Parts: sequence; C-alpha cells; structure tokens
Amino acid sequence: MKYRGIITPMVTPFNSDGSIDYDGTKILIEYLKGIGVSGLFPCGSTGLFPFLSTEEREKFVKFVIENADGLKVLAGIGSSSTQEAIKLGKSAMEAGADALVLMPTYYITPGQPEIQKHFSEFLNNVDKETFIYNIPQLCGVRIEIDTIRKIKEQYSQIVGVKESSADMRYFSRLMEFSGNDFSILQGQDDLLVPSMSIGADGGVCGLSNFSSAVVNAYNEYSEGSRSKASEIQVKQVDPLLHTLLGTTFPSGYYHAFYSKFSLNQGGYRPPMLEPSEEHKKKISAALNPE
Amino acid sequence: MKYRGIITPMVTPFNSDGSIDYDGTKILIEYLKGIGVSGLFPCGSTGLFPFLSTEEREKFVKFVIENADGLKVLAGIGSSSTQEAIKLGKSAMEAGADALVLMPTYYITPGQPEIQKHFSEFLNNVDKETFIYNIPQLCGVRIEIDTIRKIKEQYSQIVGVKESSADMRYFSRLMEFSGNDFSILQGQDDLLVPSMSIGADGGVCGLSNFSSAVVNAYNEYSEGSRSKASEIQVKQVDPLLHTLLGTTFPSGYYHAFYSKFSLNQGGYRPPMLEPSEEHKKKISAALNPE
Amino acid sequence: MKYRGIITPMVTPFNSDGSIDYDGTKILIEYLKGIGVSGLFPCGSTGLFPFLSTEEREKFVKFVIENADGLKVLAGIGSSSTQEAIKLGKSAMEAGADALVLMPTYYITPGQPEIQKHFSEFLNNVDKETFIYNIPQLCGVRIEIDTIRKIKEQYSQIVGVKESSADMRYFSRLMEFSGNDFSILQGQDDLLVPSMSIGADGGVCGLSNFSSAVVNAYNEYSEGSRSKASEIQVKQVDPLLHTLLGTTFPSGYYHAFYSKFSLNQGGYRPPMLEPSEEHKKKISAALNPE
Amino acid sequence: MKYRGIITPMVTPFNSDGSIDYDGTKILIEYLKGIGVSGLFPCGSTGLFPFLSTEEREKFVKFVIENADGLKVLAGIGSSSTQEAIKLGKSAMEAGADALVLMPTYYITPGQPEIQKHFSEFLNNVDKETFIYNIPQLCGVRIEIDTIRKIKEQYSQIVGVKESSADMRYFSRLMEFSGNDFSILQGQDDLLVPSMSIGADGGVCGLSNFSSAVVNAYNEYSEGSRSKASEIQVKQVDPLLHTLLGTTFPSGYYHAFYSKFSLNQGGYRPPMLEPSEEHKKKISAALNPE
Repeated sequence: MKYRGIITPMVTPFNSDGSIDYDGTKILIEYLKGIGVSGLFPCGSTGLFPFLSTEEREKFVKFVIENADGLKVLAGIGSSSTQEAIKLGKSAMEAGADALVLMPTYYITPGQPEIQKHFSEFLNNVDKETFIYNIPQLCGVRIEIDTIRKIKEQYSQIVGVKESSADMRYFSRLMEFSGNDFSILQGQDDLLVPSMSIGADGGVCGLSNFSSAVVNAYNEYSEGSRSKASEIQVKQVDPLLHTLLGTTFPSGYYHAFYSKFSLNQGGYRPPMLEPSEEHKKKISAALNPE
Repeated sequence: MKYRGIITPMVTPFNSDGSIDYDGTKILIEYLKGIGVSGLFPCGSTGLFPFLSTEEREKFVKFVIENADGLKVLAGIGSSSTQEAIKLGKSAMEAGADALVLMPTYYITPGQPEIQKHFSEFLNNVDKETFIYNIPQLCGVRIEIDTIRKIKEQYSQIVGVKESSADMRYFSRLMEFSGNDFSILQGQDDLLVPSMSIGADGGVCGLSNFSSAVVNAYNEYSEGSRSKASEIQVKQVDPLLHTLLGTTFPSGYYHAFYSKFSLNQGGYRPPMLEPSEEHKKKISAALNPE
Repeated sequence: MKYRGIITPMVTPFNSDGSIDYDGTKILIEYLKGIGVSGLFPCGSTGLFPFLSTEEREKFVKFVIENADGLKVLAGIGSSSTQEAIKLGKSAMEAGADALVLMPTYYITPGQPEIQKHFSEFLNNVDKETFIYNIPQLCGVRIEIDTIRKIKEQYSQIVGVKESSADMRYFSRLMEFSGNDFSILQGQDDLLVPSMSIGADGGVCGLSNFSSAVVNAYNEYSEGSRSKASEIQVKQVDPLLHTLLGTTFPSGYYHAFYSKFSLNQGGYRPPMLEPSEEHKKKISAALNPE
Repeated sequence: MKYRGIITPMVTPFNSDGSIDYDGTKILIEYLKGIGVSGLFPCGSTGLFPFLSTEEREKFVKFVIENADGLKVLAGIGSSSTQEAIKLGKSAMEAGADALVLMPTYYITPGQPEIQKHFSEFLNNVDKETFIYNIPQLCGVRIEIDTIRKIKEQYSQIVGVKESSADMRYFSRLMEFSGNDFSILQGQDDLLVPSMSIGADGGVCGLSNFSSAVVNAYNEYSEGSRSKASEIQVKQVDPLLHTLLGTTFPSGYYHAFYSKFSLNQGGYRPPMLEPSEEHKKKISAALNPE
C-alpha cells in the first residue's frame, strides 16, 4: 500500500484559554474529507507538537483516529528524546494509526550516526509503518541520503520520506528510493507541482487546513492537466503560502483556519501570538482573492 | 522575441599552458549546434570569467559570436566593478551579441539599493537586451523579487532572468514576471524539469558542454512526454550533475569536456586544479553509464 | 548579589543502562567544590536536558541543590514549551535553586515578539531570579539586544545573561547591560579570557566537569596575571575544547568525565553514542598532555 | 621584524566624479601619522579594491608608498585571478611596499587545495613578505588552520595573518602560529582588545581612518591599563563600529572620513551609495558623542 495525494499536517485547534478545541478539530476533519485529502497528519510542526504535553499528544492523536472516517492517519511522534518518541509511537500504534512520522531528535544536534541510532532504537521498539521526516530548518540537521538509505535497508517498516527542507536538489536525490511500496512526499506547498514533475507521490501541505487549492493542483497534475496544475500552483498556492509565511510560523495558519470556520474564540497557546491586524488583512486578502 | 530552450554556459577551453584554446572552442560550438542548444553563453561562471583579463574576455566573446553560426549569443559581462561591466557590455554589444547577462557586483557585498544602482548605471550606458543574473552563492547576495521588479519596470532592455540560486521557492516567485517577451531561465541542470513544470522557458545548463541529456529532457517535456522527461532528469541529468559537483566547481566540467573531445592537452588555469584520479574515474563512469 | 566566576554546566551522569547515576553526580559535585567553581548549572545543554523527562529533570535539580553544600545552583529550565518551562521553574524554585536559566522555546522557531511573550509568560508566573540564555545554534534564533533590553527593563527578576553563541561581536554588545547586580557570563570555554578582557563576570564552562584549567584561567586573569591567563587559555583550554568538539556534542564531555573518575559503567543515553576509539585516544591525550 | 600596532585599511578617497582623490589621500596619511598608527594598508576591502582597475590600484599603492614617510606599507593585492594578483604583487614590490596582503581568489569559490595552489603560484613568482588574509564573509571560503600551516611551512615569505572573519574561536586557533617573526592581526575593530588578551600583535582597524579610539585602546592595553582599554573598546569603539555597519559596507566609513576632514566633494564610486540622511545623522552622533 502506498501513500499518495495530499495529506494534511493538521493545525491543533485551540480554545481562547489555550486548551485544545476538540469541536474545532471535528470541524477541521469534516472539511478535509470534503475537499478530498487522502490523509491526516496530527502533531506535526504545523500542529505545534512541541507546545503539547505527552498526554495531550496521545489524546489528540487518538481523537483524530477515532474521527478519521476512512482517511489515513499518519501520527507525528517527533521528540527531542528517543524515549519519548518510543512512548508516543507505541501509543499511536495502539490507537490505530496507519503510520508514524519520525524526525531526528533536535536541540542537541545529532550527527548522522546519532540519527541512525535514534531510528534504530525506535524501530527496534515499535513495529509499525514509519515515515522518515526531514526538516533541517527546525531540527538543525539534514538527514543525509546515505543515512536514509541505511535506515530504509535495515528496517522494512520504513515506508516513505516526508521531505520539508525546501531544497529541491536534495528532494530530487530522494527519487532514487521511489517505488511501489515507498512514498516520497513533498512537505512544502509551493514545491508540490515541481516535485510531482519528477515523480513525487504527493504532498503534506499545510494550506489544505483551509484551502482546497493544493488538492486541486494535485488532482489536475495527476490527471494530465499540466498547465492547469501549473497555474493553480503559481497563481493560487504560491501567493497564499508567501502571505502566510509573512508572520512567524505557524500563526498565519491558525488565523486562516479560525477565520475560515468562524471560530472566533480560536486561541494562540503561548508563546504563539495572534498575527497583527496588518497581517490579518493580508491573509484575508490572500484567502479571498477578487 | 523570447529566449527559450537550453542555453550553454560555455567552458572556456584552455591549453596546457593556461592560455585560451580557440580550436577547442570551435569544437565545442560545433558540438553544441549538433545537439540542438538554442544559445551560447560565454564568460559565465562555468567559463571562469573571473580568471580572465578584460582583454581575454572581450576577445573570447567576439570569437564565439563570429563562430555562433545562427545560435544566439548571450555574453557574460559580470564584474566586481560597475565600470568594468560597462566596458565589457559595450564591447560585447559592438561585437554583435544578442543579449548581455549581468549579475550584481560581488566581493564588496551590495545591498538591494546598490544592486539597483549597478543595473541603472549599466543600463544608462549600454542600450542592449540584458538578462538579470541571480547567483547568490557566488555573489554573496540575492537579488530580491522587488529589486527585479523595479529594474524591469524602469528599463525596457531587461528581457529575462537567469536564476541560479537552486532555491525553487525563490524561482517560483519569478514566474509572475513570465511573459511573451520576458524569459525565466533555470541555471541549475537538476532543476530543469521541475522549473518547466511551473512555466520556465528553458535552462542555462552546464552539462550541455558534453552531454545532450538536458537538451533531451527539455525537448521531451516541451513535446508533452512528461514521464520521459522526468526519467531523463532523474536518471541521467541528476546523477551526472551530482558527480561533477563532487569536485571543486567547475573543474569537473573541464575534465568532462576535455575527455569527451579527447583534448588531452586541456589545461587548468591556476588556481583551478585537475580533479583527482578517483574523481576522474567517477566522472568517466557517470558520463558513460553501462 | 552578583554571579561571578566559573559556573559548571554539569553533565548528567548516566549508568550503563541509561538511567541517571546519582552516585556519579555526587562525585562530580565533590570535584567541583575542590577546584573552586562558584556555581552549579544542572540541566543545561551539556546536561542533555532534552533527553530527560520532566520528572527526571525535577528530581535531578532537587538532588543537586541538596548536595550543593554552599555552591550556588542555577537550574536549567529550558523547554520547547512555555508551559513546561513554568512547571520546571516552579519546581526548581521550591527546591531552593538560587536562580533559573531560561532560553527561548525551540524547534518552532520564535520571532523576537514570541521570545518576549515566552519570557513574560514565564516571569508572570515564576517570581525568581532568572538568567536569559542565548544559544542560537541550538534554539535556531538569536535573542536580539533590544529584546534582552525590553525583558530586562520589564522584569526585575532578570539578573544576567548566559551567552553561548560564540559570536564575540554580539557578546560585546551585551556589555552595556553589565552592572553591579547584573551578570554577563560567557558560555564558551575558549572565549573566557577574551570576554573577561571587556568586562565579563565569568563563564559557564563545560570543561570544568573534568578540568580545572578554566578555573585557573579565570583566577589568574582576575588577579591581574594577564599573560598567565592568556597562556592557560590558549595552550590548555583551547586545544582541549577543540578536541572535545571533534565528536558530536556532548559525547566527548561524557567520555572525559567518565574516564577522569573511572566511572567505567558510564552510559550514553540514546541517541548519544560513545566516541570512537580514535576520538577516545585524542581526548585522553588532550586531557593528559605530556 | 614583526608587524605590531594598529594598521589602517585605508579608504580610497574619491572625488565627486568618482575619480581617485590624491589630495584627500595625503590628508588621510597625514592624519594617520598624527594619531600613531604603525602602518598603512591601501587597496584592502575598505579601500574598495574591486571597484578599481588594475592600473588605478598600481598607481594608488605607489602614491601611498611615496607619501608613507616612515609608516610601513602593506599593499593589498587581492584578486579573483591568480594572474592579476601576481601582476599587482610584482608592481607593489617594485614600488617599495614593506609587505603584501593576499586573500584567496573569490567568486569562483576555491576549495582548500585551490587556496594552496593560489598562494604557491603567487609565492613562486613574487619573493616578498606576505600576509595571509582570511575574510570568508567576502571570499566565500575560510582558510582552514591546516591550510595556513602548510603555506606557512612551505614559504618563508609568509610573515603573518590578517584575520577578519569575526570568529574569535577561529582567531584563537591562530595563536599557535604567533611568534617573534610572525604576526597575528585582528581585522575587526570590535575584537581588538579581546584579541590582544590572548596575544594578538595588533589590529587592522578601519575606524582609524577617522578616529583615534582604536589606537588609544591598543596603547592602553599594551601599557598594562587593562580596564581603561576595555572601557575604550566597549564605550567608544564598539558603538561607533555598530553605527557604521548600519549602512551597506563600507559607505559609512567614506561618509565618516569625508565629514571628518570636510571633504565636501567626497565621492561615492558606483555602485556605492551615499548613506541616507538618517544614517548620516547617526554617524555624526557616534563620531561626536556628547
């Protein structure tokens, strides 16, 4: 079984007091089913997993699985600690996740051998389909191609790579691993069509939390409408992404989500801040182009 | 008139004593006509222009123009000095170049206002079709999208952008300038097909100095053979580029060129060094895959 | 009261099974008293705090306080989550820490306003002397001088800055905040004497876990023996540090500590790896120069 | 003979039409003698050498030598081309320079072997005392410690290193080369006293073009007035430098120089721009603190 299409790195909806908003989460999942994403990815970077306690993460992933209604669930289980990642991985597996998504430990910057150690320690303890998650701008280190090869060869649970570095040169080199049972997913919305043009299986695209544009771009390209896909990419997806990245990540995503669904009490768990009025206007304009 | 297709950033062939090899240059141009490139770009980074004296550059560009035989010639006129760029631009214009290619001044890292000043000073003195050349990894500074917009709006001579940053996010944002009389060219061989997928007009591809693969990828994609283009990109172009970048740029290109055409006396002007025996073997293997 | 002298960012001794070694911790504290450090800093980066659970951190800090025997204790309470930092801060305060050391949240890279929000949220909840900890190479962001100024002006609990960026230009600019009740501490061992030459109050120096050289350099400089301090810095401290940084941080520190005190069962909690035999030899040579 | 003290990386005074102002140059040299610098360094980065033609550089160096009146002259002969560096080196040698200052070739980023090749090609052709100039932020590459060691061991003409990376960790490691006939000079004004505290022989300090503060800091530290040196460094030198770096380098230096000596016609050769009125006010305030 291969993972394809658009998978949503879900925001974690908050109430105005900073607690998790489970009703908002249901609204989000309902929306995602409607626009045709193929999977849900709770507790990724967009989901602000480092702001959540272990218990909150376990509960949120379980809730998403229970409400997924046919959508695949890829559970984010990243941590600065191998031990916590194992705990989260076991919990998500027991809750019924389809796959797990694991990045290197962060803050204490690992070398490539330490990255391998992290994955082997994890996969020796958790027997579940797992994606390798490369996001050097947040982890502080890139997973080298050779490291991916070694982990992939040693552990059959590895089913793909979620690649979010925004470095297309690096992404291109991943294509050698592409195959029927191995998925290469682009984690940057603005690189979706370029990645598909060299064989990517889909994207983990944050904009899908409130916009169907990336899903449309994926579908058009898949169905052979190359120029239509290109147009959606360049004229809709890219400007929207650019606007959202104008505020500290990921606050723009939260504002866009809250305003799309009129969740007026939508909260910003500290230290995340609500975007400025100026940014909110820009986001509003980008979401609703004339 | 729009610039399309594959344009070759020509190596500057050297004799073993470090002088310019004009016979080798003829052989190169002959080859490029044969494989179907659309233009010649002498005195770019691959051509090691900073190693050449002003006089050598003027003479080399003139020679290329005289031997172009129908191919367009885009003359590289980059310099750390605005004054020298103007001198080179006038000389190339008089020699009959189709267009000029100008980057920001380098070493003394300019801010965006200084980049604008450089282009306006140049364009006020040289009335000729000109490409803006973005290559921050060598110039030390990126030309911001707004700066490009300002220069483009003020000077009608600007006919396109040669973008070599390898940053697809940045490249994507250039597509807003794309039009019938404005060309966006990808300067990194491994990003050719991804760039075409969002509307790039072609590529300035160093591998074309000794390999027709990039030309084939361009042609397949242009003719709608998307998956064939993708396959050439990923299986032929990318591994070859990766191998060549394994040595200090651009020595791998020179070795590949010399060995392709059996120019056994081919030279390496100091401080460029011949690749090691180990690298030469790897390059040979990449050029002649089984 | 001002914090001066050498403060030790303590390793967290591990047993061979990866659990915390409290006997080893006692040995370490005993040693530190003997060489004359002025303070203990448990749960810093050298202490691998991101590998420890919240409970382990609370217990370890408490243990260090109980065994400090007159040494000041500055408790590391950094976290990717403001909520966890508050929890750790309250716990350390109740256990009797002299001061707390707080860095920005990490992984989700904050902007300067989010850094301010993190500190204000924390200081509104925890009324205790606190150091601002700048370590951009691990946090992904530098705390700008203006941000430090704002936090310092708003909260009287702020008593100093621990600066570990290794950027002396930035460090120099902190000196404007230096005063009788505000301490500027250098977090990089090899910059100790240069920092004292412009008025730094001391250093948070990892080498003191197993070497008295940094304490000696501090004492010599303080007492006016400038050239002796310089010699210790350049001939003893710098080569030792350089050797330790030859392996993935902080494994070299752990090996040096374990071998200094013959803790043969000393462990490496995953994903930390024991240094290679080659590196262990180099570390041994650097610790015991002929 | 060893190079010590403050050496001035001279601005190249321009007339309002962009030509070199030789009268202004005389005024500058007169001033430098008066404040007690030990040497002149024409055609460095502050001197905007990449904006000058080969002929202008040769003439300007000759003029400085003829007017040095006892001050040592270290001639900047950097170039993107080894051939041009050799030409400039021979010319400066014949004109009577005391020493030459050579950096790696730039733009085409060399590896360490190419850096070695550049220096050996140069030193095989020019038999003159030469400084190695490390300035990675402009050259695009750092000269590794081992490369410096190799060049120094092979060529007795190498008499020192001018180190301008602003990386004190790297600078510290150079101190192993310090000796009676080998000078280590700090190229960043704000790192002067910290560098002297570990044994640096002096500084190549751009602020000396219009301020005696760095000379005073050097003298105080040399004479044992450590705290006075520290105070000048932190309270006078650092704020002035910080202000000047607020505009695109080195335009602030040119404005400060022109206004200090009332050279109202002082020019800004393109693409250098005059600082904004706002910046000029800040510079004025920093030069004349109340």
